[in-house]
Amino acid sequence: MIDLRYPTAGAGMALLTAVFTPFDADGGLDLDPVAKQADALQAWGSPAAYIGGTAGEGAALTTDERMALAERWLEVADGRLDVIVHVGHASLGESRRLAGHAERIGARAISAVAPYFHRPGSIGALVDACAAIADAAPTLPFTYYHIPSVTGVNLKASEVLIAARERIPTFAGVKFADNDMVDLQRCLQLAGDSGSEVFVGVAKLILAAWQWGARVAIGSVYNFAGPLFGRLIDHAVRGDLDEARRLQVLAQQVIDTAAAPAGELAGFKALGSVYGVDCGPVRAPLSSVDPEQLAALRAEVTRLGFGAG
Amino acid sequence: MIDLRYPTAGAGMALLTAVFTPFDADGGLDLDPVAKQADALQAWGSPAAYIGGTAGEGAALTTDERMALAERWLEVADGRLDVIVHVGHASLGESRRLAGHAERIGARAISAVAPYFHRPGSIGALVDACAAIADAAPTLPFTYYHIPSVTGVNLKASEVLIAARERIPTFAGVKFADNDMVDLQRCLQLAGDSGSEVFVGVAKLILAAWQWGARVAIGSVYNFAGPLFGRLIDHAVRGDLDEARRLQVLAQQVIDTAAAPAGELAGFKALGSVYGVDCGPVRAPLSSVDPEQLAALRAEVTRLGFGAG
Amino acid sequence: MIDLRYPTAGAGMALLTAVFTPFDADGGLDLDPVAKQADALQAWGSPAAYIGGTAGEGAALTTDERMALAERWLEVADGRLDVIVHVGHASLGESRRLAGHAERIGARAISAVAPYFHRPGSIGALVDACAAIADAAPTLPFTYYHIPSVTGVNLKASEVLIAARERIPTFAGVKFADNDMVDLQRCLQLAGDSGSEVFVGVAKLILAAWQWGARVAIGSVYNFAGPLFGRLIDHAVRGDLDEARRLQVLAQQVIDTAAAPAGELAGFKALGSVYGVDCGPVRAPLSSVDPEQLAALRAEVTRLGFGAG
Amino acid sequence: MIDLRYPTAGAGMALLTAVFTPFDADGGLDLDPVAKQADALQAWGSPAAYIGGTAGEGAALTTDERMALAERWLEVADGRLDVIVHVGHASLGESRRLAGHAERIGARAISAVAPYFHRPGSIGALVDACAAIADAAPTLPFTYYHIPSVTGVNLKASEVLIAARERIPTFAGVKFADNDMVDLQRCLQLAGDSGSEVFVGVAKLILAAWQWGARVAIGSVYNFAGPLFGRLIDHAVRGDLDEARRLQVLAQQVIDTAAAPAGELAGFKALGSVYGVDCGPVRAPLSSVDPEQLAALRAEVTRLGFGAG
Repeated sequence: MIDLRYPTAGAGMALLTAVFTPFDADGGLDLDPVAKQADALQAWGSPAAYIGGTAGEGAALTTDERMALAERWLEVADGRLDVIVHVGHASLGESRRLAGHAERIGARAISAVAPYFHRPGSIGALVDACAAIADAAPTLPFTYYHIPSVTGVNLKASEVLIAARERIPTFAGVKFADNDMVDLQRCLQLAGDSGSEVFVGVAKLILAAWQWGARVAIGSVYNFAGPLFGRLIDHAVRGDLDEARRLQVLAQQVIDTAAAPAGELAGFKALGSVYGVDCGPVRAPLSSVDPEQLAALRAEVTRLGFGAG
Repeated sequence: MIDLRYPTAGAGMALLTAVFTPFDADGGLDLDPVAKQADALQAWGSPAAYIGGTAGEGAALTTDERMALAERWLEVADGRLDVIVHVGHASLGESRRLAGHAERIGARAISAVAPYFHRPGSIGALVDACAAIADAAPTLPFTYYHIPSVTGVNLKASEVLIAARERIPTFAGVKFADNDMVDLQRCLQLAGDSGSEVFVGVAKLILAAWQWGARVAIGSVYNFAGPLFGRLIDHAVRGDLDEARRLQVLAQQVIDTAAAPAGELAGFKALGSVYGVDCGPVRAPLSSVDPEQLAALRAEVTRLGFGAG
Repeated sequence: MIDLRYPTAGAGMALLTAVFTPFDADGGLDLDPVAKQADALQAWGSPAAYIGGTAGEGAALTTDERMALAERWLEVADGRLDVIVHVGHASLGESRRLAGHAERIGARAISAVAPYFHRPGSIGALVDACAAIADAAPTLPFTYYHIPSVTGVNLKASEVLIAARERIPTFAGVKFADNDMVDLQRCLQLAGDSGSEVFVGVAKLILAAWQWGARVAIGSVYNFAGPLFGRLIDHAVRGDLDEARRLQVLAQQVIDTAAAPAGELAGFKALGSVYGVDCGPVRAPLSSVDPEQLAALRAEVTRLGFGAG
Repeated sequence: MIDLRYPTAGAGMALLTAVFTPFDADGGLDLDPVAKQADALQAWGSPAAYIGGTAGEGAALTTDERMALAERWLEVADGRLDVIVHVGHASLGESRRLAGHAERIGARAISAVAPYFHRPGSIGALVDACAAIADAAPTLPFTYYHIPSVTGVNLKASEVLIAARERIPTFAGVKFADNDMVDLQRCLQLAGDSGSEVFVGVAKLILAAWQWGARVAIGSVYNFAGPLFGRLIDHAVRGDLDEARRLQVLAQQVIDTAAAPAGELAGFKALGSVYGVDCGPVRAPLSSVDPEQLAALRAEVTRLGFGAG
């Protein structure tokens, strides 16, 4: 096991950002905004960029684009931020290429979803697949990215965690992106007993996760709503749970509102263009929020009380 | 629209084979058996090899491996067989690279599943994605490969067909791999009205599809059970529907039996090693049928009456 | 096994009607239209009324109402028509009461869905439940009504058929209402080998079922579209499959159109008020098609070619 | 709105018991153990019995049996305990009969699931159905029982709560039995703003619910594990969250262990026969845990640390 812990002052929570990938109007990769993205993370205190994951549209990039993106992030991070590279792919061979590249360029860690076309049918097969990836970057911590609604791999993260920490020398924990709160609780309980970490990936349940002892999250909402979540956790730490709960419900409403016109990612990226760094449209096969929808979205989240400081 | 029709004698059915990809014991790509696979197809009368699809574990290969495989097939086909290259990928950029390559090396046609990590949310977005791929091989017929249980893209194939034949100049039809018989019927009715084709991909329903006018199929069962399906169709053509139905039920039972120990693809590849050309194990993250399971599988399909000639 | 066969002239198909239950404007049971319903069935040649099933909103009636309805149907049928009483219920005790009552009043047969709140977890438990119901009407044929999308009991009908014909002396067959064409094919194959019958309950697939040897159907579409389906089968019997297929696709489009505003049953009952006997609204908790929606629905099905004679 | 609150000392939690219904070896209703069940609830401090719900196999009883059971519970409760009668049914007419009966015999409140064969298709239709039931017992508080995995009615409880408190004069809250933690959080937030109550019905998430302000639960686990959950809440109230979490995870493991051989309810009833009042087998169509399975189950929960005091 390799440690990938983010110490927090007191009982707070480290909020790592699953950053968007910038595209130009034609959907071409645009590396220009990356430096601004890194500045923005540093400005509000996010200690790491998680790149090329779901929010980063990694699966919609070519392998070459993924490598170019990672290289640019390492340049601009320049020691100010950690860069965690998502290397998951339907092909383990491509994953291994990405993992080796991430190690060579100095990434802090790698992470991968389960293979998602031909899918592992058991915990053993899934952990073997993770081991094959981790083994291609033997000096970097490896985190399993659990997101069954996207991958279709419905194996409990807690069972993966138990098997992976035995099997994979560099195993560092689980990025948990699912609504199964019981499985999340088991992961948190198990992680507490070992050196591994649970990276909470469900922004709608972050307060409940914090109450169960979670101390680190990775999410795309921090591209545009980091300060809101920061205040939420601050209130929780100070014992003002009523206000923390109110902010959690507000965050849930903002998320639902953003997702309505064209799905969660397109809505988040649109909000990011207003409340964060503009990273352009989403890439095909996704469809972007159009300008009229974005105006309505801004009006509605403002009405809910978002962005009021 | 470009034609990709396979004329059949009388009311018969052309059975195209979705060929397995051969691996060595370590899961490495092994191009040696490909020549034998081509011989086998020619021997029993399959007019085309569909490569790198679901049965071909295309998504588990790297892009370089997929190109090497396609090149080898073109060499060994040598005019005896058509080679249709599956170029579907989670990344449209990689799909386009594969499509351009297929055109350059002389493939007969290309085909692609919907992007399956970030998924198109509407018929329009899906057909745009298909158009982007087709456009990278502008002289080749393009076939949409409909397999919602794997891709998670639950848009009706009949609606894709309607939109695609307007939108994509090289659109040649749909490879239909789903149990929704109503959608299949609509596709067949629509295809009859236009120049496009429906390639039936559900071996369990091939007789019902034939009765609805289907005249071409693509499947992985033809790697090991081509003659059985050939006889099934012959009986149907001769009007002996009782025997055709008996063989259809037998085929369904063989398929269910094969799928039981480790899933359909592992079971089919195992049967292929006995009744067809040995293509080795399935590649990670899939798990292979072990020798004991294979012995039991052979015994059971023999008991059902399979392989009796 | 007790026979419940409906002989057809040549290779035709008997079309039994799953009749609507008439309600007044307040949702109260209204027995007045029942006589007209029976006349209508006789007029176009439907040999039996299946009452109190899904289309009959049986589960939304009290047990007393179900008995009153059954009694009225027996009166008006008066030997002109068979009356098959659906006695399925979440409570086997209530099912047994309904079964005994049906036998006493002279019903031709009983039929039941699987218990649908507490659900049987195995074929054995389901067939035991069916046996308990059948045993309360020991002189009547019993038919299992397979409709997993409503009951949530996802056990294959073909496996129920195999177990039930061994276990239940009065077992007469399966009413099959599901899209799984492979399971339907197995049922038809199995039924051909024994004295049991398969009552096809999927109007969208009736031609495919007929091609597989089905010779009897039960459906609610026959409340308003009996003649259309009669012509469809006539064309099939005469070998004019192109026209039969055209009518099947038309029927599918009419069904989809009817289901759009408020669900399939509300749409069918609304079409029934125009093209059959007016049975009033659907009962709570269902919601009826409103007059404006009905006008649009009529216009659309007319445009498709329905009702043109 | 009518109040149905259970005041707790400090920040504790009232644990209401969804009691089992006792059956004899043949599945016949056996009212003898009911007095012992009432004694047991009083003994460990459960303030109310919720009868005829999911755990009480209410849907498997006839209406007459449900009334007899309710009458017996009112007799033995005799002011020591509240009796809340579940009156949900696929037929609103039967629900209304049960509701009127519950009022006449002096029940404390009524509660109902959504109709579960013909299902309401909108919040409006569902709340209308609830209003029809509540109206049949106009002096009793009415609670909507949200359990979508059983009823198949997938409408958000929080939206039902918002609509029902406007529409139903006797609306008292929601019994929440689902894993959607976000919906539960909304319900708790909404309930805090009004006079309605959220009865937590997910024993696996009771601590997380308590942390969100829940102060009352209804569950079947309290038939055999009431003291465990009492201790869990006591630790939480005293601020010992580590121990509370440990007990929550233990409870989750006990629940999973119990559910393994024959489903959750059969497993719970079996554990109830050991650690609570013996209520006999489950009734058909459910299948009971057999003696061998029960011995293994006892051994396993003991090994986990259950029952150790």
